[in-house]
Amino acid sequence: MSLSDVFDSIEVQPWSEVVELHEALLQEQLDYVVARSDFYKAKFAGLRTSVSSLADLANLPFTSKDEIRESLLARPPLGLHVAADLGDVVQIQSSSGTTGMPTFVAATAQDIDTWNSMGARVFYANGFRPKDWVMHAYAMGRGFVGGLVNIEHLQHLGVCVIPLGAESGTERLLGAIDHLKPVAMCATPSMVSHLGSMAPEVLGKPARELSIRKISVGGEPGGGIPAIRQQMEELWGADVRDMMGGADFGSTYWAECDEKDGMHVCSQGALHVELIDPDTLESLPIAEGVSGELVYTTLRRQATPLIRYRMGDIVTVTAMDCSCGRTGYKIKAHGRADDMLIVRGVNVFPAAIKDVVMQFVPDTTGYLKIDLDFAGHSTYEALNMRVEISNTSKKSAKDLALLLEGAIRDKLTVKVVVNIVPEGAIERPGAQKEKLLERVSKA
Amino acid sequence: MSLSDVFDSIEVQPWSEVVELHEALLQEQLDYVVARSDFYKAKFAGLRTSVSSLADLANLPFTSKDEIRESLLARPPLGLHVAADLGDVVQIQSSSGTTGMPTFVAATAQDIDTWNSMGARVFYANGFRPKDWVMHAYAMGRGFVGGLVNIEHLQHLGVCVIPLGAESGTERLLGAIDHLKPVAMCATPSMVSHLGSMAPEVLGKPARELSIRKISVGGEPGGGIPAIRQQMEELWGADVRDMMGGADFGSTYWAECDEKDGMHVCSQGALHVELIDPDTLESLPIAEGVSGELVYTTLRRQATPLIRYRMGDIVTVTAMDCSCGRTGYKIKAHGRADDMLIVRGVNVFPAAIKDVVMQFVPDTTGYLKIDLDFAGHSTYEALNMRVEISNTSKKSAKDLALLLEGAIRDKLTVKVVVNIVPEGAIERPGAQKEKLLERVSKA
Repeated sequence: MSLSDVFDSIEVQPWSEVVELHEALLQEQLDYVVARSDFYKAKFAGLRTSVSSLADLANLPFTSKDEIRESLLARPPLGLHVAADLGDVVQIQSSSGTTGMPTFVAATAQDIDTWNSMGARVFYANGFRPKDWVMHAYAMGRGFVGGLVNIEHLQHLGVCVIPLGAESGTERLLGAIDHLKPVAMCATPSMVSHLGSMAPEVLGKPARELSIRKISVGGEPGGGIPAIRQQMEELWGADVRDMMGGADFGSTYWAECDEKDGMHVCSQGALHVELIDPDTLESLPIAEGVSGELVYTTLRRQATPLIRYRMGDIVTVTAMDCSCGRTGYKIKAHGRADDMLIVRGVNVFPAAIKDVVMQFVPDTTGYLKIDLDFAGHSTYEALNMRVEISNTSKKSAKDLALLLEGAIRDKLTVKVVVNIVPEGAIERPGAQKEKLLERVSKA
Repeated sequence: MSLSDVFDSIEVQPWSEVVELHEALLQEQLDYVVARSDFYKAKFAGLRTSVSSLADLANLPFTSKDEIRESLLARPPLGLHVAADLGDVVQIQSSSGTTGMPTFVAATAQDIDTWNSMGARVFYANGFRPKDWVMHAYAMGRGFVGGLVNIEHLQHLGVCVIPLGAESGTERLLGAIDHLKPVAMCATPSMVSHLGSMAPEVLGKPARELSIRKISVGGEPGGGIPAIRQQMEELWGADVRDMMGGADFGSTYWAECDEKDGMHVCSQGALHVELIDPDTLESLPIAEGVSGELVYTTLRRQATPLIRYRMGDIVTVTAMDCSCGRTGYKIKAHGRADDMLIVRGVNVFPAAIKDVVMQFVPDTTGYLKIDLDFAGHSTYEALNMRVEISNTSKKSAKDLALLLEGAIRDKLTVKVVVNIVPEGAIERPGAQKEKLLERVSKA
């Protein structure tokens, strides 16, 4: 791979120059929000002058999701935090709203350009190239940014997009892949696994005999879970790479390159990223091996700028440079802070548990639910979970449960009680994101 | 309204100039398809020279949906009819595939521009203006062109689009309308009626107290059915206008203007339209009062051009000019030829029956199914249908059935047997198109 094999030359620019750009853009963005956003005018009263560099950002308070919800309710339609004239807004997206009311994210034409520049870098890093035919199999409705916004990214990159969407269902998606022979696909990991496992039944041939050789996954942690990635790659005979982002800032701005060992930051010139300790809220250095929560600051947002915004992603920095030539650091994502469980004082992410369960495919189907039969996310009891045994397994339910409990204890130092359920007992995610946690009342 | 109050000046250009443009474009398009499309090379062998004007188009054979399906199967992915290099295709749409296999429609970047120019004229004629906030409530998934393609039209027009889509469901859509206060909405008539009737339950207030004042409907015949339009306008306190098109040529290219008495042709420079007798296949003049089937010829299509293509729409020309200044003629649509029933020799469209049933709201809910208990679309028996009686009706089922049978006989000279069913017995269309016909086995 040549050093210039990136969508945008900023991706291979010396990092010091990126920082210099961010220093300048930060000052412009702060002047803009203090002048135009009533929310930040009030929040940063007397504080604006305390920030003359990126290092000073820590002098400003964080912005939380709850504040944005309150802001939206306090002054509909776009909240106290809006900074553009309403007449300049060209698109309004809606968050998934899985917890609490859906929030709305507005964009001007320039904001859409900024989103597209990040998104095109992501899909290019994930291996997509102009003129590739790409099956788009994320959900398209409900304002989900994996739909329309991702399609706009793909069009900006210059691929041929086939926007069938997850709503098309298994038969229609597989039939279209078989007929149109796209070389690439983007979808959630659970959709990729589902389509791959259904191909023999629907088309009479395994997914690896189809045309797809490049798969970009996101929207769920699966792409970063080795056992799930391996399963997807074997099913499809394809290269699977992970990406990540969130509705508040477009769709996607982290992506794995050819090395597939962590996601590069792809938001140069658009978002400045800090790392903090989620408990003490202290700033952490972005350096190899450091784990913490991502904090985002927009650098040229017009409609709904956000300064020091906590989306809740917990990550570890895995590398500061890369043989691909990209100068941006790489991270591995563990999940959202909201989903982190604390079991007898030990932190554990549902995705890490899924990783272990996946290592027992084909004895299990890989589908599981963690039953939250306690308030909040912290328990001193063993964690109750359900795992599907596959119809073809020769193991007894009891043996499989013991194996899973042992493996999870060994790898994650967490005690779990595994309840084995038959294949098909756990609801498939379909067009929705896979939900590993389920609130249940104590048995 | 000023004579120039149109999206595109071609809409008010003297019709003779439009015809002159079409004369020139037709020759270019025919040269293009004969040179680049294997399907048309074979189909028009020896015939190309017989067409030196629009009037000569009748020398060429029609293109049918079945031929396109066969073409797609004969040479995947895009068929023998494809005329562009596959590397120049930037988007592939899928037809709804309600009958037979879904077909694929490809577009180059220039084709998308052509689609957008027609679509923007349509939404502008329907009353949408740049900077209007528009709730998009068509289905977005399954490759349905009312989704992504309509959104691209709206963005080309310059509105602010809120792309929640029909998949969002009633509560989320109404909640977003209540919060964001868009002035306009586009959706199927059944979705517009459904959302309007649910507003009191979901939001505690009638739809007419919400912000929406302009509604563009399409995808089903409802917008052209007086009783349905009236019901929608009363529910929402809004101006409701009809539009029409089809996936093979983008999304939409017929639209009602302020006069609301028929849909103007909006495809100047992109599609040439003929009218034929669907039985004799003879050309008919486009003149006030003439009824027939629409036949489309693309004029500058690159990826999948279609010459003399029969989509099956049966229409009547309602006017050759209009006080709005548009020089294009206007039509009223009756439905697709596929759906036309012949009852004891009398032609009747399901939409016309729906119109009569709607006149009995609130005694009926307006929901109905016509039970096709005979092969094909022709019967010598009375037509069996089910109609819902509403919970609040004071009429007996027997009285309502007699009233409906009498009204349909009087207005459409068709004998029907109405079976009254309780409110809720007929499936609601939801995000799907309303299906008035249902194949059933003879009781």
